[in-house]
Amino acid sequence: MTKRDVAHMPRVLLTDHPWEDLSIEQGILRAAGAQLVVGPIEAPSGQRVEEMVREVRPQAILTCWAPVSAAAIANAPDLRIVARLGVGLDNIDVKAAMSRGAFITNVPDYCTQDVADHAVALILSWLRGIVQFDRAAKQGLWQPESARFDRLADLTIGIVGYGRIGQAAAQRLGGFGCRVLAHSRSLRSGDETVEPVDLPTLCTQADVILLMVPLTSDTRHMIDDAFIAACRRRPLIVNVSRGPLVDNAALLRGLENGAIRGAALDVIEGEPIPPREIMVHPATVITPHIAFVSDAALTELRTRACEQVVAALGGLEPPNAVCL
Amino acid sequence: MTKRDVAHMPRVLLTDHPWEDLSIEQGILRAAGAQLVVGPIEAPSGQRVEEMVREVRPQAILTCWAPVSAAAIANAPDLRIVARLGVGLDNIDVKAAMSRGAFITNVPDYCTQDVADHAVALILSWLRGIVQFDRAAKQGLWQPESARFDRLADLTIGIVGYGRIGQAAAQRLGGFGCRVLAHSRSLRSGDETVEPVDLPTLCTQADVILLMVPLTSDTRHMIDDAFIAACRRRPLIVNVSRGPLVDNAALLRGLENGAIRGAALDVIEGEPIPPREIMVHPATVITPHIAFVSDAALTELRTRACEQVVAALGGLEPPNAVCL
Repeated sequence: MTKRDVAHMPRVLLTDHPWEDLSIEQGILRAAGAQLVVGPIEAPSGQRVEEMVREVRPQAILTCWAPVSAAAIANAPDLRIVARLGVGLDNIDVKAAMSRGAFITNVPDYCTQDVADHAVALILSWLRGIVQFDRAAKQGLWQPESARFDRLADLTIGIVGYGRIGQAAAQRLGGFGCRVLAHSRSLRSGDETVEPVDLPTLCTQADVILLMVPLTSDTRHMIDDAFIAACRRRPLIVNVSRGPLVDNAALLRGLENGAIRGAALDVIEGEPIPPREIMVHPATVITPHIAFVSDAALTELRTRACEQVVAALGGLEPPNAVCL
Repeated sequence: MTKRDVAHMPRVLLTDHPWEDLSIEQGILRAAGAQLVVGPIEAPSGQRVEEMVREVRPQAILTCWAPVSAAAIANAPDLRIVARLGVGLDNIDVKAAMSRGAFITNVPDYCTQDVADHAVALILSWLRGIVQFDRAAKQGLWQPESARFDRLADLTIGIVGYGRIGQAAAQRLGGFGCRVLAHSRSLRSGDETVEPVDLPTLCTQADVILLMVPLTSDTRHMIDDAFIAACRRRPLIVNVSRGPLVDNAALLRGLENGAIRGAALDVIEGEPIPPREIMVHPATVITPHIAFVSDAALTELRTRACEQVVAALGGLEPPNAVCL
């Protein structure tokens, strides 16, 4: 292949990649005659992305966590697609890309099972004291006396958002005999697994509140002082979706004044440096935004994101093109 | 009531009680005209129990963890019942009691749901890294990079023992999409939830091995060097039944040489002072024999154990009299 050939190959800019090996991406894009230009492992700043795009002038942007701003999009005159390696699109200026006629894609269902598994793992770890008792064991202590647990079957779990992940969580919770409520704008009649309720009902009746909604201007800080004050059963707050669904200051006040029994969080506003008070609070169980992770999920995510890029470069509509 | 009346009331010796408040026991036994003689909170030695029985000469012995030996039973000439506050009978000399014509009772199903919940909590905590990542968070660290998980739906779970608790665990695991094998001497054809297999098949095919059998001379140290050497998928060993099902030295060798990926243990041989190497090992998740605990379970346990004592003192066969 001559330099001239390479110069005419479409360029795909990968802004960031939280996995080192890129054999899946290289394999799929090379087979389609595209050239992969690789950014850093850790997500760069919005400004750095804008500079990278100005230098590379890509036909396709593949992004995991890095912000893809209107300015970045304006720097790529031949842009055909911005493909997210993930579900949420909150790090992409979707309107700017669409107004340019570029496709926006995500991979909406690659980690449905994993996030649902992780959510139930967080709930059970918190409710059965696994984390706190293992912490004591790791200090050589065997102290069963303080164990006081509710029976799971006596509890009511409220799922906020009943999309793919909410439904998968409900399916998993079905085996434990607890009552499961679900709130969603689109859910009218429940299936056999859940009772559809409005948000105030969920708020007052749930012992566990599981957030499974996307982050939008409507859902930002939905768990705030007013929401927590309206709770009646000292719920456990579980967030596996996006950190900013929860107002951190309100959460901390709720933990301190006992309005909530605890929080199990895979996402926290301010990550990767979330407030230390939340991280170290004895009534929290924290994981660092890993609910989506499994070997099977990552392989599917990377494969399908690249296939969407290949489709767009070939003039086809990608299977997961987003319509707003 | 005169001293003479009290002297003629049947005496119930409670050998130990890992809960402080005794209002349930006092209420039921007093209403039945029996006198409760209370031992210490922590289980006394077998010798101390023998002395207590010699002093009290009870018609009924209620025991949680304290050993009730043949010698203790011989010290109670009017004994009608030894009632276990729990499921397993391994701390009671059942033959000695039966040969005296005393009833032996347990409460076989008071904590079925709780133990099954706890087992699944241990499995999920281990597989989704909840414990290790929360431990990092409690030190202020947010480090997602090392997360590598199998997808639960791709795993095979093998349940050894398919009694009440094994079935309840299978019911819970049903929602996660994984393959569930079960081995039990009595299980011939499976229900829809599990595939019945022999123990060698379970041993070679399972990624997670869940012990849900009673402790008997047949099951003691069933997880030994030979069992671990026969495993093929580096299983996670989960024990919520009795510590001595597992040979601790063999378990540690398996953890060190990688034949097993880890262990999630609510019971360990040698508790309440189990080997420190198991407690602090980075590939273990440990809870201190609390799988049976819930508020609902303890209320049911204490109520039903006392009711069996009342039945036996009244000349009736208690509902959970054990036949050998």
